[in-house]
Amino acid sequence: MHDNHHLVVVGGGFGGLQLVNDLRGAPVRITLIDKRNHHLFQPLLYQVATTLLATSEIAWPIRNLYRDRPEVTTLLGEVVGVDSANKSVILTSGRSVPYDTLVLATGATHAYFGHDEWAPVAPGLKTLEDATTIRRRVLLAFEQAELEEDPAKRDALLTFTVIGAGPTGVELAGIIAEMAHRTLPGEFRRIDTRKARVVLAEAGPRILPAFTEELSAYAGGELAKLGVEVRTGVPVTDCTHEGVMIGESFVPSRTLVWAAGVQASPAARWLGIEADRAGRAVVEKDLTAPGLPDVFVIGDTASVVWEAGKPVPGIAPAAKQQGAFVARMIRARLESKPAPGPFRYRHQGSLATIGKRAAIIDFGRIKLKGALAWWIWGIAHIYFLIGTRSRFVVAWSWLWIYLSGQHSARLITQKETLREEG
Amino acid sequence: MHDNHHLVVVGGGFGGLQLVNDLRGAPVRITLIDKRNHHLFQPLLYQVATTLLATSEIAWPIRNLYRDRPEVTTLLGEVVGVDSANKSVILTSGRSVPYDTLVLATGATHAYFGHDEWAPVAPGLKTLEDATTIRRRVLLAFEQAELEEDPAKRDALLTFTVIGAGPTGVELAGIIAEMAHRTLPGEFRRIDTRKARVVLAEAGPRILPAFTEELSAYAGGELAKLGVEVRTGVPVTDCTHEGVMIGESFVPSRTLVWAAGVQASPAARWLGIEADRAGRAVVEKDLTAPGLPDVFVIGDTASVVWEAGKPVPGIAPAAKQQGAFVARMIRARLESKPAPGPFRYRHQGSLATIGKRAAIIDFGRIKLKGALAWWIWGIAHIYFLIGTRSRFVVAWSWLWIYLSGQHSARLITQKETLREEG
Repeated sequence: MHDNHHLVVVGGGFGGLQLVNDLRGAPVRITLIDKRNHHLFQPLLYQVATTLLATSEIAWPIRNLYRDRPEVTTLLGEVVGVDSANKSVILTSGRSVPYDTLVLATGATHAYFGHDEWAPVAPGLKTLEDATTIRRRVLLAFEQAELEEDPAKRDALLTFTVIGAGPTGVELAGIIAEMAHRTLPGEFRRIDTRKARVVLAEAGPRILPAFTEELSAYAGGELAKLGVEVRTGVPVTDCTHEGVMIGESFVPSRTLVWAAGVQASPAARWLGIEADRAGRAVVEKDLTAPGLPDVFVIGDTASVVWEAGKPVPGIAPAAKQQGAFVARMIRARLESKPAPGPFRYRHQGSLATIGKRAAIIDFGRIKLKGALAWWIWGIAHIYFLIGTRSRFVVAWSWLWIYLSGQHSARLITQKETLREEG
Repeated sequence: MHDNHHLVVVGGGFGGLQLVNDLRGAPVRITLIDKRNHHLFQPLLYQVATTLLATSEIAWPIRNLYRDRPEVTTLLGEVVGVDSANKSVILTSGRSVPYDTLVLATGATHAYFGHDEWAPVAPGLKTLEDATTIRRRVLLAFEQAELEEDPAKRDALLTFTVIGAGPTGVELAGIIAEMAHRTLPGEFRRIDTRKARVVLAEAGPRILPAFTEELSAYAGGELAKLGVEVRTGVPVTDCTHEGVMIGESFVPSRTLVWAAGVQASPAARWLGIEADRAGRAVVEKDLTAPGLPDVFVIGDTASVVWEAGKPVPGIAPAAKQQGAFVARMIRARLESKPAPGPFRYRHQGSLATIGKRAAIIDFGRIKLKGALAWWIWGIAHIYFLIGTRSRFVVAWSWLWIYLSGQHSARLITQKETLREEG
């Protein structure tokens, strides 16, 4: 290995960026490929979907991050395959990019458990466009309800259903309820937005299953205070433009949001290696692909064992730890030193917010809930936001919302037919 | 006239909002109809198109502005006609909204002088979507140039043409040049963005014809310093995906922006009254439609004589003055007092900026240029931004850009096929 060693990183998410950051000064040329021009701070994406933040507050152009690193080349391109025999990745254009070492950090998207026909009516939340789509639909539902004469149709327009009660589902339901019950009253003349229903549907026995039963129960109580109807233990069996079938009961609801499942990107298929049930590539203990020591898979697209057979969770800190680990691996190889041993995930804690005043945090021994947890959550998220300006802007946005009760990004954009009915 | 007098205002731009604002406390019910849910601060739209500002920094939900005015109902809907015999406006849904007094403030859109086929390749700048479309194309052109192997194609990707050298065209060309020559260098590895060409094409004899020859010449010199190639006196005769025909010479240019002409909304046709060449409704001296004393037309969609046959310009202060005038007219009628006499336009001045450091201002007797003009321009625009928070946020964005040289909203969003070629 020498100065000309070429590392190709696919994916500018938390894992990919941590890797590139940690290789500063290493004798390696890096090509970072992403199909988007921006890194997205996904943990706050739900705040764009619910009008709290603007798109540019949580996204940052990737090539700007490495302007002072001449050895890093950023390419906007979509990878569609890997030719591991010839050591190159294939882009949609047919062009191939050769590598000496490859890291796939291509993330995950939402999964509809074999019901892809639900995707148009129940959008998930992975990209900025997903967030503006959900924002537009939520805001348009209130606008259409204001125009609607038929009471049944008006009620369906004022019913919002979030499917899946992990942290994202709970966060979405909480903010939509707060918007309907606290932000919007007074702005409409024909409807009372306080009568809007927000339904949170969860197939499992309780919300936020990654947390303890006590914290989960607390979060359920806070959601109830915000007026969210939580329905657990019954799976969603159909999603249509008219509403959602929860078990045997149909809920007329014109706005559905999908927060129920994820599917890894097809990295395992590109490499021809085994995938787990969620499509994640099953990797070795050092995060290399089996039989391909020059190929690493990290983040949401890798299946890595944590403890007692439990997989490492698909969260930002896990992806960052894997990126940092692979950076150490690559440095050790470049310097012909021994490898740093198997990857070990250190769980730093689980966080979830319920609306704009409460949160739950599980640090293992220490468990927090309520307003203090909410402030810790807010400070942690501002701290981890990339780019100095974004930190200040988001802090300012939140402070404004906190003090004024006004949301800053209530825009209906993109073209979708304005349906005026009734 | 009594408490139940129903005023319908179509259009929540500068004219429509000024009218509604000035009728606070008047004994009149108001229905404000707009096809968008937000008021747009159009004078700064070019800054969204050029990544300086985020969409939510210059747009504000209309109904939020009137939350404390229970007599004002905001409707999201698109008007497609007026039934002046039955005194009602017709929405796309077929629904009609009856009025006692009607004010049409529906603005203008871009005009291609009979070449509507140019619209897809040379987008104009009137809506937030227009701005994000232009932003996406400008950013994608640099990304595609970085991937391009063919030198001729690369040069075409790095050539940006703005058609029309009024204030918007000058502002767009100036910022694109600054972005290419000052913001982006250092971020690309294969192309030198400082070699990008920005062409500003103007059919008339000089840029910024609304200003004096001296200010226009100064602006031309500032544009030249920024590296903009100004071509005046020759009309654009064709626009394609490959480039633009300026007179007899073809300029290979993959990114075109249209800033050359506007066409009024079809208010004149709805009312069956005379329109001028730009489609603007020719109104009486009191801004009523001829033969329809209960219908007013204001702003960019009205043709009003200013001095010596010159029309009132299509700028925000003119629309606001007309909105204020109609508010006085309606109050006088409601109180059975004499009408306030014919509308008289007071021109407060013309402003245009060239890049991020220079501007020209014509206050009539006082003419300013350079850095001082730029600061006056900036302070005036922040002052007139609607909503306290937007003012602070925009001020902060500009200060950040001024101090750091970084742009805050360099996002490629919305779905458009990523063309990787070569």
